[in-house]
Amino acid sequence: MRLAVIPGDGIGPEVVSEALKVLGEVVPNAETTSYDLGASRWHSTGELLPESVLGELAEHDAILLGAVGDPSVPSGILERGLLLRLRFELDHHVNLRPGRLYPGVQGPLADPGEIDMVVVREGTEGPYAGNGGLLRKDTEHEIATEVSLNTAFGIRRVVSDAFRRANERPRKHLTLVHKTNVLEHSGSLWSRIVEEVSLEYPEVSVAYSHVDAATIHMVTDPSRFDVIVTDNLFGDIITDLAAAVTGGIGLAASGNLDISGRNPSMFEPVHGSAPDIAGQNVADPTATVLSVSLLLDHLGEKEAARRIEASVAFDLATRDQASPGTTTAIGDRLAALVSSNAAPRPAL
Amino acid sequence: MRLAVIPGDGIGPEVVSEALKVLGEVVPNAETTSYDLGASRWHSTGELLPESVLGELAEHDAILLGAVGDPSVPSGILERGLLLRLRFELDHHVNLRPGRLYPGVQGPLADPGEIDMVVVREGTEGPYAGNGGLLRKDTEHEIATEVSLNTAFGIRRVVSDAFRRANERPRKHLTLVHKTNVLEHSGSLWSRIVEEVSLEYPEVSVAYSHVDAATIHMVTDPSRFDVIVTDNLFGDIITDLAAAVTGGIGLAASGNLDISGRNPSMFEPVHGSAPDIAGQNVADPTATVLSVSLLLDHLGEKEAARRIEASVAFDLATRDQASPGTTTAIGDRLAALVSSNAAPRPAL
Ligand SMILES: CC(C)[C@H](C(=O)O)[C@@H](O)C(=O)O
Ligand SMILES: CC(C)[C@H](C(=O)O)[C@@H](O)C(=O)O
Repeated sequence: MRLAVIPGDGIGPEVVSEALKVLGEVVPNAETTSYDLGASRWHSTGELLPESVLGELAEHDAILLGAVGDPSVPSGILERGLLLRLRFELDHHVNLRPGRLYPGVQGPLADPGEIDMVVVREGTEGPYAGNGGLLRKDTEHEIATEVSLNTAFGIRRVVSDAFRRANERPRKHLTLVHKTNVLEHSGSLWSRIVEEVSLEYPEVSVAYSHVDAATIHMVTDPSRFDVIVTDNLFGDIITDLAAAVTGGIGLAASGNLDISGRNPSMFEPVHGSAPDIAGQNVADPTATVLSVSLLLDHLGEKEAARRIEASVAFDLATRDQASPGTTTAIGDRLAALVSSNAAPRPAL
Repeated sequence: MRLAVIPGDGIGPEVVSEALKVLGEVVPNAETTSYDLGASRWHSTGELLPESVLGELAEHDAILLGAVGDPSVPSGILERGLLLRLRFELDHHVNLRPGRLYPGVQGPLADPGEIDMVVVREGTEGPYAGNGGLLRKDTEHEIATEVSLNTAFGIRRVVSDAFRRANERPRKHLTLVHKTNVLEHSGSLWSRIVEEVSLEYPEVSVAYSHVDAATIHMVTDPSRFDVIVTDNLFGDIITDLAAAVTGGIGLAASGNLDISGRNPSMFEPVHGSAPDIAGQNVADPTATVLSVSLLLDHLGEKEAARRIEASVAFDLATRDQASPGTTTAIGDRLAALVSSNAAPRPAL
């Protein structure tokens, strides 16, 4: 297993190092190569993602990213020049974001019920296509456009993936989240494709929710969601909300997948580089460890993936929530749990 | 005071009738004219918003709308043909949505803190402009576009309104919610205009939040928000979430304002027509009563507006939350409170 690692900025290197510690317990012979990308590289060289680095990244089985970003870099530079560029260049069309409320974790909801959902967010089109512009800049008559681009090809591969996942889950339920009553054209395309693909999955029940209503359900009745499939921007919004109601972005993992397997997929915690707490050994590496579990699952190492997830679940259920320990202490605990195989298997 | 009333479908007529009862206590001589628009009119005549009706509506001081919609009408027809058409034709550029957690109301958050925000949502442009289309429909190569249109003119008038409101509130704080790191062009225009207008309001402190992060704050730290100014689509999403965390859309009021005063503004509860509970005298008219309070405030009847809001606050603090009473009982209670002027004034 050849992994490219992008530790990044802020707490990125710290959480990645713990995640690799845990990975070492299940895949001792993984080869890792580290790539220096992010705010510090941009400051020192002006480079965001050199072609040569992109080429090297593409030769790995998967990529693990910590976090990039720093207040010293103008907003948008790293996002568009590095993070989104990776998603587009490596055709990461499925942005996979599980949202599970683990026992022992106290989220912001008074009565959350059971939460166990997976959001399949489209990753390479919609309003993220970078298509738009300014006219008559800096005048009274300035106009800015942003064009959401949606293709049958792009939507179908993501919707198919979401149905496949729903079909493998006990509840076999899929919700399309969109805003079809206003975004008539893209809404029509998404709806028709969901309807078409649903014919191949007669056992999967299908629901629809407008994105505004979905945010209400996310806080009043999140248990209703099993698999959600949605557009790039709506997915961006509701996965942050899903992370919040399941205990915060400190626990949320994500995968940027090229389902075709042509390019390596990339795994990363949903949280950012948190420069305010960097270097203090206080960041929680759990989301990055869970991202490694997603990575292993994607590479077919199902058993190893489950062992890591079960260890995390066990640790979350038993840790002192108020003071879960230092970054390295949590990493050590998780590594020990994984190696001892002590954590009970999750009920599937 | 000449009011046009659109009772609409489902519970619309029921909640509107209670709201007018309450209005009658503070403005006994209001002239109201009822307009039959919505699902039932569309079914019987195929009409959504005839030009003649639009012309008549435009001659009133304000419009009160209950709710329109029915499952028998295909999604999008009434939204685009009636609701959004009214907003566009009457230039309702400020979509005003207060989000306040009243004492006594139990929302979904375990520890909400004090919530008292106002969202100023742009109402006439952005992705709602209806600009987009389909190419190669029903083929493998189909493409759908949606164009977000953003003008300096359109943004400035909304941002100015938001600053004016922030400047009049005790905390004098304004948050721009957008997605500037991805939506480069519209994000740049919104950011520059907020910066420009902020120079006229040196006492208002300004913050920025990406829309995804804003949904997190809305459930983990909603007290941070005072006035939010945002784009049409982001506003649609976060106001539903704000309504959810302040006790549900059953309590959320809204105003669609033409700040210039050229056209009548329209006031409506955020909730829909709820056909499942229509005709049973069980719908809570509180959101519609609060919409009347917004209406009066907009027409300069500040004292009457405050009396209604104080009565609602008093009733919410003292009502049996589990069984607040029938639609008419709640209306009667609120009307009595307003007329007796018994409710204590809210601390301002
Ligand atoms: C950093 C930003 C470009 C990114 C996005 O909008 O997709 C982030 O919010 C995410 O969800 O991964
Ligand atoms: C009904 C729909 C068109 C509308 C919107 O999207 O604006 C609604 O959700 C709202 O928030 O008023």
